[in-house]
Amino acid sequence: MARFEIYVTYKKGIFDPPGATAERALANLGYEEVSSVRIGKFIQIEVADGTPEERVREMCDRLLANPVIEQYRIERTGEA
Amino acid sequence: MARFEIYVTYKKGIFDPPGATAERALANLGYEEVSSVRIGKFIQIEVADGTPEERVREMCDRLLANPVIEQYRIERTGEA
Repeated sequence: MARFEIYVTYKKGIFDPPGATAERALANLGYEEVSSVRIGKFIQIEVADGTPEERVREMCDRLLANPVIEQYRIERTGEA
Repeated sequence: MARFEIYVTYKKGIFDPPGATAERALANLGYEEVSSVRIGKFIQIEVADGTPEERVREMCDRLLANPVIEQYRIERTGEA
């Protein structure tokens, strides 16, 4: 089994609704030291041994991320 | 400015609806090498210089994660 972690974030300049909501909520709770919150997705995927990163990239482009507004980073985290 | 990254994931044994949906969708698209998909949150937060990790942990417990079903990991990623 091979494991990959994928970090999906909004592209620079794209409005991030959940991040903006959390930012305001933290301010309302009194956390005035917070200047920015961005919320993306953290995906952990297990695939068959020998699956190349290219294949995982294809899954991101087709399903796991929205290439119009999101960018992503893939990390191979292990072979188990 | 200090930066932290927070990885929020469902606790072991807790059903992960978005992960299960992605898993089935990938199977339908023909990605038979996929055996598991778990989808959590990837949070990037910027706070004032000198903010201790403890304070970020408090924000997670109060707002950013649901301690009943989620666990999280905090990483300090920089001071800028």
